[in-house]
Amino acid sequence: MVLSNLNRERVFGMEIVSKNKCFGGIQGVYKHYSTVCQCNMTFALFLPPSAKDTSVPVLWYLSGLTCTHENAMVKAGAQQKAAQLGIALVFPDTSPRGKDIPDHEDYDLGQGAGFYVDASEDPWKQNFQMKSYIVQELQDIVMTNFSVDENAQGITGHSMGGHGALTLAFLYPEKYRSVSAFSPIVNPSKSEWGQKQFKAYFGDNPECTDQHDATKLLAQNNYPGDILIDQGTKDQFLDLLRPREFISVMNNTGQKGTFNMREGYDHSYFFVASFIDDHIEHHFQKLLS
Amino acid sequence: MVLSNLNRERVFGMEIVSKNKCFGGIQGVYKHYSTVCQCNMTFALFLPPSAKDTSVPVLWYLSGLTCTHENAMVKAGAQQKAAQLGIALVFPDTSPRGKDIPDHEDYDLGQGAGFYVDASEDPWKQNFQMKSYIVQELQDIVMTNFSVDENAQGITGHSMGGHGALTLAFLYPEKYRSVSAFSPIVNPSKSEWGQKQFKAYFGDNPECTDQHDATKLLAQNNYPGDILIDQGTKDQFLDLLRPREFISVMNNTGQKGTFNMREGYDHSYFFVASFIDDHIEHHFQKLLS
Repeated sequence: MVLSNLNRERVFGMEIVSKNKCFGGIQGVYKHYSTVCQCNMTFALFLPPSAKDTSVPVLWYLSGLTCTHENAMVKAGAQQKAAQLGIALVFPDTSPRGKDIPDHEDYDLGQGAGFYVDASEDPWKQNFQMKSYIVQELQDIVMTNFSVDENAQGITGHSMGGHGALTLAFLYPEKYRSVSAFSPIVNPSKSEWGQKQFKAYFGDNPECTDQHDATKLLAQNNYPGDILIDQGTKDQFLDLLRPREFISVMNNTGQKGTFNMREGYDHSYFFVASFIDDHIEHHFQKLLS
Repeated sequence: MVLSNLNRERVFGMEIVSKNKCFGGIQGVYKHYSTVCQCNMTFALFLPPSAKDTSVPVLWYLSGLTCTHENAMVKAGAQQKAAQLGIALVFPDTSPRGKDIPDHEDYDLGQGAGFYVDASEDPWKQNFQMKSYIVQELQDIVMTNFSVDENAQGITGHSMGGHGALTLAFLYPEKYRSVSAFSPIVNPSKSEWGQKQFKAYFGDNPECTDQHDATKLLAQNNYPGDILIDQGTKDQFLDLLRPREFISVMNNTGQKGTFNMREGYDHSYFFVASFIDDHIEHHFQKLLS
C-alpha cells in the first residue's frame, strides 16, 4: 500500500487499487471488506484539489444496472466540474460481488442489480444490503478516511442509481441535503424494473416495496429542497422508468424542482455527460447554502 | 440502416453501429469495408451541433496501444469542448482486426498496435496499412459522408497515437494544419516501443524507420505551426516515450510550440481528460486562422 502526500486521506484497512491525478485532484479506487455485505467491496472516490486544504462537500453518484464503480468514473466526465467547484465524488459499486455471492442469470437481478435496498429474503439477505452499505457503512468509511464534510452531502445517480438517489434522499433528507437524478426508475413498484427485484429481495412485503418507490415516497412527503432530474425523450427504456407518474406527483404536491425532458437524448452515458455539469452546479448551490 | 435527419451526413456503404446525441451533437460509430486494410474497420465520429448548418473543422484523435475507436470516445471527455467550439472529432481504430487478420501474442504488436505505418513485410503487409488508411481511405470517407471541412484538419493522439499524430503531421503538414499530442512515443527508433514493431513491419529498411520517428523527422524539417504536447512527470512509460530527445530537437531547431511536463500526472486517460480542452482550443485557434 502506498500512501500519497497529495491529500489528507487516512486509509485504514483499505487496499488502494489505483490512484490517478485528474484535473489537479486525485481519482482513487479502493477495496475494503464490507461487514454489511459480507464480502469485499470496491468504490471510487474523487478528491478535488481543494481537499488538500479543507473538508469539501461530497456528491454520491449511484450507478445503474450492470455497472460497477468504474462506469461513471470513466464515462460521466464529472471530475472537471467537481475539481473547479471543489466537490468530492463517490462512485460505489451497485451490489455485492464474487463467486460465493448469490447471483441470477438475468442482468437485472443479483450481482450488478442491488437496487439500493436491504434484502429480507433468501438467498439475497445475507449479502444484498446495499441501502445500509451506502447510508451507513460506506458513509462511515468515507467520512473517516477522506477530507470530506459530513454536513454537506448530496446524492445523484443514473437509471437504477437515479432510483437509489431519489429514494435514499427522500428517506434521509437530513443526510442528503441535495438530490438529482438522470433517467431514474421513479416508479419501480409499477415497473418490470422493480416488481421483479422487489419480489425477489422483499418477498410479499408491501411496506418494503412502498419504501423504495420514489413516486410513492414523494406522494407522502415533499423533499425539503429542489429536485433536479434530466430525462432523454429518446430513452429506449421510458416505459420502464415511468417519468410521467413522478412528474404528476411533483405537480400535485407542489414539490419544488425541475424535471427536464431532453429532446433526442437516450439512456447512455453520452446523455449523462452532456448534463453532469448542471447537476454538479445544482448540488454545489444547495450544499453551500 | 437508419439515417438521421439531425445532420447532413450521407452514409454510403457504411453500417451505422450506433448514434447517440451528445452535448447537442451526434456521437456516431460506423463500420465499413476497408480496401486498404482488406477487412472491416470501425471508427467513431462526433459532429458538433453547428455541423447541421455548415462544414466544420475536424480533429483526428489517434489512440494508443490496445485501444479501439471506443476508448477515447468514452474516456477523453473531448465532446464538450468540441461541441462548444464547433469541431468534429474522428476516433479511428488502431489496427485492422479480425480472426483472419495476422496477430501476435504480445499486446504491442499486431492487432491493436498498427503504429500508423504501412507494413512492407509478411505477414503484416496485406492488412497493416494504417498510414494509408488514416491519410487516404478514411480521410476520403469522412470528407465524402460528413459535414466537415477538408481544409481545416488537425491531428492529435495519445501514446502510440501521439506518435502517429506527430509523424503524420510532419509528413503531411498541408493536410494537418495543426498538431498536438499526449504522452507521445516521440523517438520509436530508439525505444522498445518502436524498434520491435518497425523490425516486424519494415524488416531492415532504415528509410521506413526514419520516416516514422517524430524526433528524426523534426530534426530534418520544422513543422510550420506551433506544436502542443502534454506529458505527465509520473508517466510509468517515460523511458519508452523518450520526451527529452524530442524536447532537445525542438530547442535545437527553434521549432515553435510547447512541451508541457505536467507534475504528478501518469499515462492514463485521467491525464488526457485533464488537458483535452487545452488541446481542442489549440487546434481551434490554428484551424480558424
